[in-house]
Amino acid sequence: MSEKHLKAGDPLPPYNGKLRLFAMRFCPYAERSVLVLNAKNLQYDLVFINLDSKPEWLFEFNPKGSVPALEYEQGKAIFDSAIINTYLDEKYPEVPLQATDPLRRAQDKVFVELFLGAHSSFYVAAFNPDGFQPSHLEAYSKGLERLEKELEVRGTKFLHSNEPGLVDYTIWPHLERFESLPLLGKADMAIDGTKYPRVTSYLEAMKQVPAVKQYYLSAETHAKFVESKTKGEANYNMLDTSDVCCMRPRKKKQ
Amino acid sequence: MSEKHLKAGDPLPPYNGKLRLFAMRFCPYAERSVLVLNAKNLQYDLVFINLDSKPEWLFEFNPKGSVPALEYEQGKAIFDSAIINTYLDEKYPEVPLQATDPLRRAQDKVFVELFLGAHSSFYVAAFNPDGFQPSHLEAYSKGLERLEKELEVRGTKFLHSNEPGLVDYTIWPHLERFESLPLLGKADMAIDGTKYPRVTSYLEAMKQVPAVKQYYLSAETHAKFVESKTKGEANYNMLDTSDVCCMRPRKKKQ
Repeated sequence: MSEKHLKAGDPLPPYNGKLRLFAMRFCPYAERSVLVLNAKNLQYDLVFINLDSKPEWLFEFNPKGSVPALEYEQGKAIFDSAIINTYLDEKYPEVPLQATDPLRRAQDKVFVELFLGAHSSFYVAAFNPDGFQPSHLEAYSKGLERLEKELEVRGTKFLHSNEPGLVDYTIWPHLERFESLPLLGKADMAIDGTKYPRVTSYLEAMKQVPAVKQYYLSAETHAKFVESKTKGEANYNMLDTSDVCCMRPRKKKQ
Repeated sequence: MSEKHLKAGDPLPPYNGKLRLFAMRFCPYAERSVLVLNAKNLQYDLVFINLDSKPEWLFEFNPKGSVPALEYEQGKAIFDSAIINTYLDEKYPEVPLQATDPLRRAQDKVFVELFLGAHSSFYVAAFNPDGFQPSHLEAYSKGLERLEKELEVRGTKFLHSNEPGLVDYTIWPHLERFESLPLLGKADMAIDGTKYPRVTSYLEAMKQVPAVKQYYLSAETHAKFVESKTKGEANYNMLDTSDVCCMRPRKKKQ
């Protein structure tokens, strides 16, 4: 699979009848939908988008120009990871990813909302370190504490159950990136196994989930992308090897 | 019903076994949940919150301290209008408010997302007029154009069907407030019946829906609240008559 990100002027790849997700390789929100597509064993194509130079046709699929957007039928799309994932779970119920109890489904969403406070802090720490305040560290710890407590209260391997579900696939992309913080000069944001034993086991268990494993990127890779972005030119194509292995060898873009 | 907004130091009213919604009388997001509770003919109590001086106990129901929050069982709550309303629709299916087709449900949510661009412009026009830019007027018109077109494409009286549904109850609180803009010095943001004939009929039809009618406030009332807020002291209790009619008459607060 090409990991090349399309930019303004690039043509839309031909539609081949499969579900197609417009994404960005390092975007946690796009990853949420990738994980759900994987977990449901659905056939799909990924189209990666350079978010600093968006192809014009992206706006035909999503007037907001954000990713993820899911082309469910040629030329027709829905967007927003929560909308896409709920749709996928309802449309393809063979592998159900949500609780059957309406209250539990609501509580899962509430948990995600509260956990996102930690993601906001991650985002400032990684991409805007000069703006980092003690309140950010506090919100980050609060998010991890909530996760620790929720895992304790639920008593299951994952939040959904002993199998991962939508709630797990929704928060995972954020956690995957949290692990890059020590490499970005934020040693105090490392997830301490003594303080957060359940979170630590959860992280390891999630990394073994097939849907996660096939899209997982290491802390080092995430840190490299962050560094390229904070230096002023996000290196969207850092994982792309499509030029290297094609028939007409071209110099690999750095 | 008392329309008095509780503030820091005020005690939590005793729980009486009913669903209880923490709201603010002029908050469009809280109104979304009020309308769904009404549409489903559910028994509930409203607890109004002074958002400039939040009672301490609000944070026990919602750590974010926002409204709406729904106490579904004594001391236990969920929050966020979208989470609450989906929960209510799934938990109390007697009056279903969503389409049965997963794609249509997703499309309804996408429509709401896109329509909210108009709300953002309303918000700036009403509460921060000095920050109002031509792009805000453009986004506002775009939202109304989308609604006009969607009503045309769907061909039904409401967006949901010939009966209003969740999508209608979700956008209505914003539209109700848009009508106050001409009274706030934004004559160019009046909804022009020539340009938006379907939106105009839709507004009139929505005002006749029982769930809407019993909570509706006029453009004049919304404008008065906005004016009190922009003057620096939001008059949360402007509709409260509980002091007037109680046994020990007290001077009505203005």
